[in-house]
Amino acid sequence: MTNNYILHQEVSKHNSKDDLWVILHGKVYDLTNFLSEHPGGQRIILKYGGTDATGEFSQIHPREIIDQFLSPDVCKGEIHPDSTLATVEKAETEEEKQVRLAREKMPNIQEMYNTFDFESVAKNVLKPEAWAYYSSGSDDEISMRENHNAFHRIWLKPRVMVDVKNIHMKTRMLGTEVSMPLYITGTALGKLGHPEGELVLTRAAAETNIIQMIPTLASCSFDEIVDAALATQTQWVQLYVNSDRNITKAFVQHAEKRGIRGLFVTVDAPQLGRREKDMRVKYSDEAPEEMEQKDVNRNEGAARYISTFIDPSLSWKDLPWLKSITNMPIILKGVQTSTDAILAFKNGCQGIVLSNHGGRQLDFAPSGIEILPEVMDVLHREEGFNANNFEVYVDGGIRRGSDIFKAIALGASGVGIGRPALFAMSTYGQAGVTRLIQLLQDELEMCMRLMGAPTVQHITRDMVDIRNLKDHFVANPMDHLSHSAYERMVPRGMLSKL
Amino acid sequence: MTNNYILHQEVSKHNSKDDLWVILHGKVYDLTNFLSEHPGGQRIILKYGGTDATGEFSQIHPREIIDQFLSPDVCKGEIHPDSTLATVEKAETEEEKQVRLAREKMPNIQEMYNTFDFESVAKNVLKPEAWAYYSSGSDDEISMRENHNAFHRIWLKPRVMVDVKNIHMKTRMLGTEVSMPLYITGTALGKLGHPEGELVLTRAAAETNIIQMIPTLASCSFDEIVDAALATQTQWVQLYVNSDRNITKAFVQHAEKRGIRGLFVTVDAPQLGRREKDMRVKYSDEAPEEMEQKDVNRNEGAARYISTFIDPSLSWKDLPWLKSITNMPIILKGVQTSTDAILAFKNGCQGIVLSNHGGRQLDFAPSGIEILPEVMDVLHREEGFNANNFEVYVDGGIRRGSDIFKAIALGASGVGIGRPALFAMSTYGQAGVTRLIQLLQDELEMCMRLMGAPTVQHITRDMVDIRNLKDHFVANPMDHLSHSAYERMVPRGMLSKL
Amino acid sequence: MTNNYILHQEVSKHNSKDDLWVILHGKVYDLTNFLSEHPGGQRIILKYGGTDATGEFSQIHPREIIDQFLSPDVCKGEIHPDSTLATVEKAETEEEKQVRLAREKMPNIQEMYNTFDFESVAKNVLKPEAWAYYSSGSDDEISMRENHNAFHRIWLKPRVMVDVKNIHMKTRMLGTEVSMPLYITGTALGKLGHPEGELVLTRAAAETNIIQMIPTLASCSFDEIVDAALATQTQWVQLYVNSDRNITKAFVQHAEKRGIRGLFVTVDAPQLGRREKDMRVKYSDEAPEEMEQKDVNRNEGAARYISTFIDPSLSWKDLPWLKSITNMPIILKGVQTSTDAILAFKNGCQGIVLSNHGGRQLDFAPSGIEILPEVMDVLHREEGFNANNFEVYVDGGIRRGSDIFKAIALGASGVGIGRPALFAMSTYGQAGVTRLIQLLQDELEMCMRLMGAPTVQHITRDMVDIRNLKDHFVANPMDHLSHSAYERMVPRGMLSKL
Amino acid sequence: MTNNYILHQEVSKHNSKDDLWVILHGKVYDLTNFLSEHPGGQRIILKYGGTDATGEFSQIHPREIIDQFLSPDVCKGEIHPDSTLATVEKAETEEEKQVRLAREKMPNIQEMYNTFDFESVAKNVLKPEAWAYYSSGSDDEISMRENHNAFHRIWLKPRVMVDVKNIHMKTRMLGTEVSMPLYITGTALGKLGHPEGELVLTRAAAETNIIQMIPTLASCSFDEIVDAALATQTQWVQLYVNSDRNITKAFVQHAEKRGIRGLFVTVDAPQLGRREKDMRVKYSDEAPEEMEQKDVNRNEGAARYISTFIDPSLSWKDLPWLKSITNMPIILKGVQTSTDAILAFKNGCQGIVLSNHGGRQLDFAPSGIEILPEVMDVLHREEGFNANNFEVYVDGGIRRGSDIFKAIALGASGVGIGRPALFAMSTYGQAGVTRLIQLLQDELEMCMRLMGAPTVQHITRDMVDIRNLKDHFVANPMDHLSHSAYERMVPRGMLSKL
Repeated sequence: MTNNYILHQEVSKHNSKDDLWVILHGKVYDLTNFLSEHPGGQRIILKYGGTDATGEFSQIHPREIIDQFLSPDVCKGEIHPDSTLATVEKAETEEEKQVRLAREKMPNIQEMYNTFDFESVAKNVLKPEAWAYYSSGSDDEISMRENHNAFHRIWLKPRVMVDVKNIHMKTRMLGTEVSMPLYITGTALGKLGHPEGELVLTRAAAETNIIQMIPTLASCSFDEIVDAALATQTQWVQLYVNSDRNITKAFVQHAEKRGIRGLFVTVDAPQLGRREKDMRVKYSDEAPEEMEQKDVNRNEGAARYISTFIDPSLSWKDLPWLKSITNMPIILKGVQTSTDAILAFKNGCQGIVLSNHGGRQLDFAPSGIEILPEVMDVLHREEGFNANNFEVYVDGGIRRGSDIFKAIALGASGVGIGRPALFAMSTYGQAGVTRLIQLLQDELEMCMRLMGAPTVQHITRDMVDIRNLKDHFVANPMDHLSHSAYERMVPRGMLSKL
Repeated sequence: MTNNYILHQEVSKHNSKDDLWVILHGKVYDLTNFLSEHPGGQRIILKYGGTDATGEFSQIHPREIIDQFLSPDVCKGEIHPDSTLATVEKAETEEEKQVRLAREKMPNIQEMYNTFDFESVAKNVLKPEAWAYYSSGSDDEISMRENHNAFHRIWLKPRVMVDVKNIHMKTRMLGTEVSMPLYITGTALGKLGHPEGELVLTRAAAETNIIQMIPTLASCSFDEIVDAALATQTQWVQLYVNSDRNITKAFVQHAEKRGIRGLFVTVDAPQLGRREKDMRVKYSDEAPEEMEQKDVNRNEGAARYISTFIDPSLSWKDLPWLKSITNMPIILKGVQTSTDAILAFKNGCQGIVLSNHGGRQLDFAPSGIEILPEVMDVLHREEGFNANNFEVYVDGGIRRGSDIFKAIALGASGVGIGRPALFAMSTYGQAGVTRLIQLLQDELEMCMRLMGAPTVQHITRDMVDIRNLKDHFVANPMDHLSHSAYERMVPRGMLSKL
Repeated sequence: MTNNYILHQEVSKHNSKDDLWVILHGKVYDLTNFLSEHPGGQRIILKYGGTDATGEFSQIHPREIIDQFLSPDVCKGEIHPDSTLATVEKAETEEEKQVRLAREKMPNIQEMYNTFDFESVAKNVLKPEAWAYYSSGSDDEISMRENHNAFHRIWLKPRVMVDVKNIHMKTRMLGTEVSMPLYITGTALGKLGHPEGELVLTRAAAETNIIQMIPTLASCSFDEIVDAALATQTQWVQLYVNSDRNITKAFVQHAEKRGIRGLFVTVDAPQLGRREKDMRVKYSDEAPEEMEQKDVNRNEGAARYISTFIDPSLSWKDLPWLKSITNMPIILKGVQTSTDAILAFKNGCQGIVLSNHGGRQLDFAPSGIEILPEVMDVLHREEGFNANNFEVYVDGGIRRGSDIFKAIALGASGVGIGRPALFAMSTYGQAGVTRLIQLLQDELEMCMRLMGAPTVQHITRDMVDIRNLKDHFVANPMDHLSHSAYERMVPRGMLSKL
Repeated sequence: MTNNYILHQEVSKHNSKDDLWVILHGKVYDLTNFLSEHPGGQRIILKYGGTDATGEFSQIHPREIIDQFLSPDVCKGEIHPDSTLATVEKAETEEEKQVRLAREKMPNIQEMYNTFDFESVAKNVLKPEAWAYYSSGSDDEISMRENHNAFHRIWLKPRVMVDVKNIHMKTRMLGTEVSMPLYITGTALGKLGHPEGELVLTRAAAETNIIQMIPTLASCSFDEIVDAALATQTQWVQLYVNSDRNITKAFVQHAEKRGIRGLFVTVDAPQLGRREKDMRVKYSDEAPEEMEQKDVNRNEGAARYISTFIDPSLSWKDLPWLKSITNMPIILKGVQTSTDAILAFKNGCQGIVLSNHGGRQLDFAPSGIEILPEVMDVLHREEGFNANNFEVYVDGGIRRGSDIFKAIALGASGVGIGRPALFAMSTYGQAGVTRLIQLLQDELEMCMRLMGAPTVQHITRDMVDIRNLKDHFVANPMDHLSHSAYERMVPRGMLSKL
């Protein structure tokens, strides 16, 4: 980093794709090389090329993300204290107006009875780019939807005549006692949905006594999120390993010093997934003239480029180093086969998260819940394994208390939720997240009671029917001629309405 | 119970959530603690806090339900004979007007050809809260719909060239000869659908010579229902075991004295299920101001609270006591696994009902018909078992005569119907219920004749194909892009209409 | 039959449900007892009670159907030659006008490319009661639609590099050489669709050199249909066995004398099926006042009554008698299990038709094609069986040339079509039926050529994949909340249309 | 061919179905016998009977197609140099106007994110006859849609913690190194979609370094297509074997001389398939009066006729001859069973394409990807077989990079795309095809990286789950009454929109 002072006029010259400077928090950065790595797309950066982007930037990114992901030499200096440039005042757009009106008509929070109520309200009130970013999945979004679908292939075998007066769903996760086997997993860019971003989740987690996993790509800074926690509150952190291992080392050791109790290393995202809804929304943003003219063959988004801030060369060989820099338990997040589950155990990890990244990475990757039974089977055959020294978590598609029950029955130590928490946060803030978690507690309590399982320990594998869990049924193509020619039967009460 | 006289003015002071009195049939009750246990929700009680609720109450509850479920000390005294308070006259609401108009346009009863005709007409003419209460199921209503779906996974293997001139479908249930292997199961709150409530079912059962099971939560009193029966008519009774065993004992012994021939102990409802449609309708009722202000995190309905009037601690240990207080045959209603079926047999019950409570309790609980084959298999391997000393019934999803045939073929002694009877009662009263049962008789007779099974004894397991009965197919998430881009084929006759 | 002369005035007095006379072709019949047996419903007869119904009657029934199904004593005498009564001239109804206009807009016959084109045009131009009668199936019409669906569970295994220059699809059925392995099966009431009724099918069968099976319940008389055939043309006849065996004997022996080459005894219809669409249309016909007033519990249609003209006591014991009265080959039509297939063979029949009566009798009866493989398997294990001394036919759901191919591959000697022929006849008359059969020939020729099977003998079982033939998949109930909250992906070209 | 000069007036006399002359490029042809063989239907030829059709003809056919498919004697002579006839100027039709307007509103090419985007835009901008020809499949289009569906029955088993920094997807096909395991397969009539026809594909293939297979029925001439290629560019050619083997021999030897590196003999099309959408569009073209009058029973299109220019007698016996006339590797295109795969190997071919001709030939033929595993299994058991001396390709339904991955994992040497290239070409020309291929490269690279497979060699069979690949699920017919009577659940956010 230099001590150079730079004038706004100078910055404004660097406003093209091949030479792009941007002012952030009073400093000038050359983002030319970073352009193609930006997970949020090139356009938004190009739009602010040569100008002060602090306003837009700070709405979704913490200040220190710059140092966390970029090498120091991209900083060209500081804006000269005397240099000024008028910031543009934006009038309320039609889109913003729609969002504002939708927020005014939001239903009472008491009317939220399940996760889908929150999601459907969020769809109404989120900005299009926020909805697209939160709700999208990779390619055809098959895996994203499969995640919840898979739970529908698991049926229950309820036991009756069991004393279920008192239900206890407390359990331990990586040593912490929690109110239920559920945590909030790390998801990026919380400020897209709520002005206070991840802090909302921190507070709701405290209120309900569950664990929050701090995302690497949070909108709030890591320290802000830790500071927002209660002294007694347990937090975990998610990690993208940087190509520059020193950045990672500094981050990990800082996290440990701040009291983080679990290091969740993301292993399913050496490259960020293609999410077409997100790409489409980003495209429709105002685009600089020049970009239209060339590179039509280049795919907007990160598809053909990979980042330096997420190291795609990360492999089992890096684990000893990672273990050497921290005493936090290391959990691999994004394991998708029993083979890799065994490798994680043998390589000295303390656990895994079976996850396909919410269906945001590889389409047709299986859901975590689908592979859970076989993972537990092979782990149980492994010498030295037990559920205390190696914990298996599942995320993806958890939408009902019965989903949690099913995961526990199949051997999980707990489950993570991502989007549901984002949607609750984006609509009703902390009260929304708290209500969401209480609804899941209500549902889980109901499920445990009706299953005849008064405690988490009573939830066992023989209580679920997984006969069709691994079946992926694709119906024959529709026989349109035959179906069209057929006249549907209609019950009498609906005929009278015609 | 005291002999206190209380004035309306005094009652009217107790009108808040934390101090709630209500006048019913001239007596004053403190319902503060009962508030959260009321299966019908808190709002309706809060609405009448501090006032005389007799009118609304008696429209759906029998007078003695108070003594049956509440301890005597909630009664604070009687209204002073001289105290008067004007009752409010309600004008016809828009909603009531719609219902009235719909009733005027009801089709002729002769046009009812199947259970769905009744259901669809009921949807048009029932008050929203009645429709919501009758038609809803738990959570995503998967089990509720699965109940009938499961029958569609059973196919028939019809025999031909059998003399089927005469069809006999008479059979015996717990010693009573009935006209067909069908009974009306216990369902709550009959007056929501018909001003005479359960008495309508009693009379139709007499007319068609089938058995009615009297529900615990009937709108009419137990004695009213028994009084409405013919001297020769057999009735059963459904039981929720109260935490106060004396209340239960008194109820059971009274029932036996009145000639009830079967005691059906509900074992699948230690807590009443979450039914979101029902919750939504209850929410939209007028809500007292104060309730909006706090407790937003509390889930309306019974989800987080359990009742004292349904004892969640009921277990196998209670069976000897239950057997000690009555000579009626004891049947467990709501068994859902073959393991519990065996336990019921070994613990000296006279039968079980395989049921998931009409899909109103635990979502993803299997349908009774799905587990029937395995239940019969394990029972037949049990020493001492035969179909005469231990009867297996099924309810849930019976909508066609062929459904009855399938259940009998798989070993059931009979089947129960709930909602269809409610819908027929709610639309055409006794004539509706009678026609419903006759339609099912017609369908069953047709089915037996076309299957080559002239009597119930001729209906055997080799006549049904249950190859896919236990399969729960969930289709892959739809490939929307591919389906949207495809242009559907259209037969020529429909093109001409475009 | 008496020689009495009766006056119109006398007849007109017998116009109630309990005393019902009708004039047909100059004779007076007492139909009081027949009322409940009429497959076409009571209403239509009641409508003409006490009047001359010859016009309506002769539009759908042959004159001799009376003698064929009714005992002689229902004839009360002849109308006195001098007695006259004005016949009512009916103006064109709105419904008739719609049908007429639809017929005027019918597409060119050259635009008919498949069976569904005919069906969809028929839906537009048929009178409602004709469409309802032809198109309806029993109960929920599951079996009716399953019939064609089942073929979609059979996939092909095409062989290449085979000389398929010349394709021969000629074959023999019960000794007759035909142009392809297809026949027109017997279906009732042809005049509902075409003024010339079954004669149209006779002529088209001659034109295309396939066999027609004459239905018992034809609109034209048996002799008319035989007379319409070419001298060289083979016809079969379908038989409902009458309770009065003499009527049957006379009919069978007359048929043999007229040169009929196959006697197809219907065994799947001891009682005519419940077809609710048909019942609904019949109800909506003008109904006599009195009928509304009582018997509301009685189901319109034949459901609760069985006929004398179709003997429900027919059983294997009757076969020796049947064989004794004719030398025609006896084929049982409507066999639905391999057990009964064996019995038919052992009882000396010459063949069977695997059929569920077009899905018009017992819902959830399997399709013929589904059971064909197991039927052939057990027959081939039977001593003395070969495909020449016992022929197996299939009907139900044949809609494409490939359906015929699949049936032949699985061992059928040929297949029958019913509704497709009716729809082609009802729209384009003889030219329609001929085109229909030629389309099926084109499709079958194409299929044989692309399968590498130049003759019928080359069509073998290893050419079809029946892995899922017996699977009856029922999807899980839809997860409506999840599906509603999800935002579908849309390809860009369809977005632009929004 | 004669040296006769003919006048326009003479030609114009031969304008009927039974005597049909047409002028093409100055020569007069008698097409009477060819009429019924024309894959594009009779109508279009009849329309130009007796006139100069050069304009219409050259818009979709190369000049030499005449010599390639017709025998010399159909040429009656040349038009006399002095003979003139006014050509008709056509005004822009409404349909052409719609297409022109749609083209003006086409989205930016940067907005094309997947194959379906191109297809959906093509649907908007293609002429109806072009869309019908490109998009249609045989009969009910089941196989056509099954082709992509089948890939959805294959799920992935992603490996993590693998160094995937560098992804290499280069591979070799029949000796040529290509940028990825993908080629553009031969598809007919490119000028229907783009004025430059197949040349567009040639140039895009060069730009992206993949192989183009030249179709027999191209709109451009074979030599034009070869001439458009780079000197270093590899091309293959597709072959329909002519009944006149000399025509085939000349064509093959010319191809070899021009440097073609692979001869793909089409074996799945002894007769061209029935494509009803295509037939319907062709019918709706203006039809000569006389045709309406007769032959109504004749099916428009090629269904009942077979061509001489595609020899239906081609069989294994012809292979030695074919091998004798060329040194190009011979690959059979359209193999659909493992039995024929073995025969191809044993008969000395160099490879096969598992294909059902894009679902355009035989409906219910399996997709290539479905039979790939069993084909590879039997080949690997064959002595002498290895993936270098016998290459297996798959086409049909490839729409995503993951589809390519799945085919490679199951043993394919590469995959072909047909329609996607046509749709990209028809919309954005060469840039469109290039972008399409780059999108597939992006997707495949993403897939390989997220699967932990850095090179094509790392893509192995244990990475895919094919448990349900061979299952053809057909759902039970819909239970319409039950579904209609049920009231769907709606999440709260969507209720508020009502």
